[in-house]
Amino acid sequence: MSERVYNFSPGPAVLPEEVLEQAREDLWNIGGSGIGVLEHSHRGKLVDSVFAEAKADCRKLAAIPSEYYVLFLHGGASTQFFMLPANFLPKDGTADYLHTGSWSKKAIQEAERYGRVHVAASSEDANFSYIPTGEQTVCSDAPAYVHLTSNNTIAGTQFATEPRVLDGAWLACDASSDIFSRPIDVQKYGLIYAGAQKNLGPAGVTLVIIREDLLSRPAVRELPAMLRYREHADQDSRYNTPNVFAIYIMGRVFKWILANGGLAEIGRRNRAKAKIIYDVLDASSQFKGTVRADSRSQMNVTFRARSEELESLFIAEAEKQGLVGLKGHRSVGGMRASIYNAFPEKGCEALAQLMREFEARHG
Amino acid sequence: MSERVYNFSPGPAVLPEEVLEQAREDLWNIGGSGIGVLEHSHRGKLVDSVFAEAKADCRKLAAIPSEYYVLFLHGGASTQFFMLPANFLPKDGTADYLHTGSWSKKAIQEAERYGRVHVAASSEDANFSYIPTGEQTVCSDAPAYVHLTSNNTIAGTQFATEPRVLDGAWLACDASSDIFSRPIDVQKYGLIYAGAQKNLGPAGVTLVIIREDLLSRPAVRELPAMLRYREHADQDSRYNTPNVFAIYIMGRVFKWILANGGLAEIGRRNRAKAKIIYDVLDASSQFKGTVRADSRSQMNVTFRARSEELESLFIAEAEKQGLVGLKGHRSVGGMRASIYNAFPEKGCEALAQLMREFEARHG
Repeated sequence: MSERVYNFSPGPAVLPEEVLEQAREDLWNIGGSGIGVLEHSHRGKLVDSVFAEAKADCRKLAAIPSEYYVLFLHGGASTQFFMLPANFLPKDGTADYLHTGSWSKKAIQEAERYGRVHVAASSEDANFSYIPTGEQTVCSDAPAYVHLTSNNTIAGTQFATEPRVLDGAWLACDASSDIFSRPIDVQKYGLIYAGAQKNLGPAGVTLVIIREDLLSRPAVRELPAMLRYREHADQDSRYNTPNVFAIYIMGRVFKWILANGGLAEIGRRNRAKAKIIYDVLDASSQFKGTVRADSRSQMNVTFRARSEELESLFIAEAEKQGLVGLKGHRSVGGMRASIYNAFPEKGCEALAQLMREFEARHG
Repeated sequence: MSERVYNFSPGPAVLPEEVLEQAREDLWNIGGSGIGVLEHSHRGKLVDSVFAEAKADCRKLAAIPSEYYVLFLHGGASTQFFMLPANFLPKDGTADYLHTGSWSKKAIQEAERYGRVHVAASSEDANFSYIPTGEQTVCSDAPAYVHLTSNNTIAGTQFATEPRVLDGAWLACDASSDIFSRPIDVQKYGLIYAGAQKNLGPAGVTLVIIREDLLSRPAVRELPAMLRYREHADQDSRYNTPNVFAIYIMGRVFKWILANGGLAEIGRRNRAKAKIIYDVLDASSQFKGTVRADSRSQMNVTFRARSEELESLFIAEAEKQGLVGLKGHRSVGGMRASIYNAFPEKGCEALAQLMREFEARHG
């Protein structure tokens, strides 16, 4: 097998090699069934047990209380951007959004089709380079829900903790790019959604964790079956044929996190990994982080060099050394090191080493 | 590697072994990139070329004219059930549906949320055991579109050819269970959709072939970005992160069909495969097909034995011999042999042989 590189891709992103090795076996023949994982009926016993294990491991991992459903839905966060307000924002109601980057902007745009949006806080004034504080957050009187994006992949910011919400309001969180990267207190949320392709698995499936009582409320509008959380909860994520393979991989990733010490340990590792790179940035005169120190993401480290020429040179040198995917998002430029759960600490060390060498050569 | 069985699953279904073998390599490291196919950015060069090849091969395979878009969308046919009327059925308009089974019923139910549905033909009077003729089909005056399900997985029926539609109307086809199983005249359709998990690849992606002029029409209602065909066409199926892996596998399946002679040859093989089983049914006093001879599906051969006890016994014996997944749909009982493109002729022979032996033993 040929060598693998350090893959800093912002998503789809690197997966644990143990999971890939198992998947290579199971593609051909899973569990001695004589049938590969792609080829099994989604209503057969084998897939039953794959899904049941994935759900149970997910619950265990995040200590998800029994009053929450765990759903595996088609699509990505972009589908949730409209499915959330379609289900929960009445036409004459208001939803509060914390506006912290490109993804919250898209979420806001979709919500505006269904009802009113109140931007409760925004860091747009400084290119989304910080996370608004609690004092900077002003909610509306009776929001249908309060939405945040826990980690901002493009800006490289991350909420250190959940914003407080008013009594009776509930938090909806787009956790696509930091789900299960550290402990999470599920009870603080009404609904958490996460496209899988950064921390959990392949693209094309979204993990949704939703509080039971939200499903029992009267519908705010008529919707197709495929867009109703209630329908997917009642059918245990099998209203239609689900993305079996992506759910299978997610399940293997859950097991991998559990085997590696769970969310507390994965959180410790992620802090250590990010610190390796942030320490170089703090000591550098060539490289500079783009984000306020208290708002730094542990998943996406965004930084600039002294000129765009030096940035291109750095990215090219990195690629030659097998450090791939460091180019910043096209809307902001610069560099971005995406170091999700499965990204190895050694890769962070290799990047830090290259940054120091580059600085020694180019000042 | 342990042995694989004959997998008669109705979907997700058997895939070509050559495709699985390639996928096992590419999961680890695709194209010498040092990164597996699940881990590549969906906007990077490697995925660019995977998608471009998949699209080009799809066009070549079905001789798709240039005025049609080829899209790869999230979800399955169930998403198309509502996305089609949401985009094309005005509130005060009428869409015509040919009602030939459980799936057309679901499609009708979703369309009814958006406008009027006229059932232009139905075989519900005989448990969907036949395909209505052109004479039995009565369209409305000015349908927004005319919808058919080309193959009915549960009933085991298949349209031999497209129904004629009125001038100005266009055909929309759910081809999920027989797409690319035989030559198709794309120009007869305005829109073709097919969930991948029967003839094309893994679950979680839908192939949509749509005529350009339909995208230029004024929108019949405001819709979220993710539900607009126009948006997906403009963004070349990358409005959001697509199901990269499923599209990759579809691309490999397209290549496999091309390498095996294209749709004409695959159609010839499928006819031959189905004939092996239908010939046994026609000569048997133990087994009996459930479908009118002129409406028989080449994808799903449905049949009964003389008693439910004998059916259970037959299914159990088959399973012991490595013929798996022969149980009929829970709503109709009996047996069903799903023999999509990738199902080998030898498996049909093995089933025919077992049927003859079973009859010799049980009369």
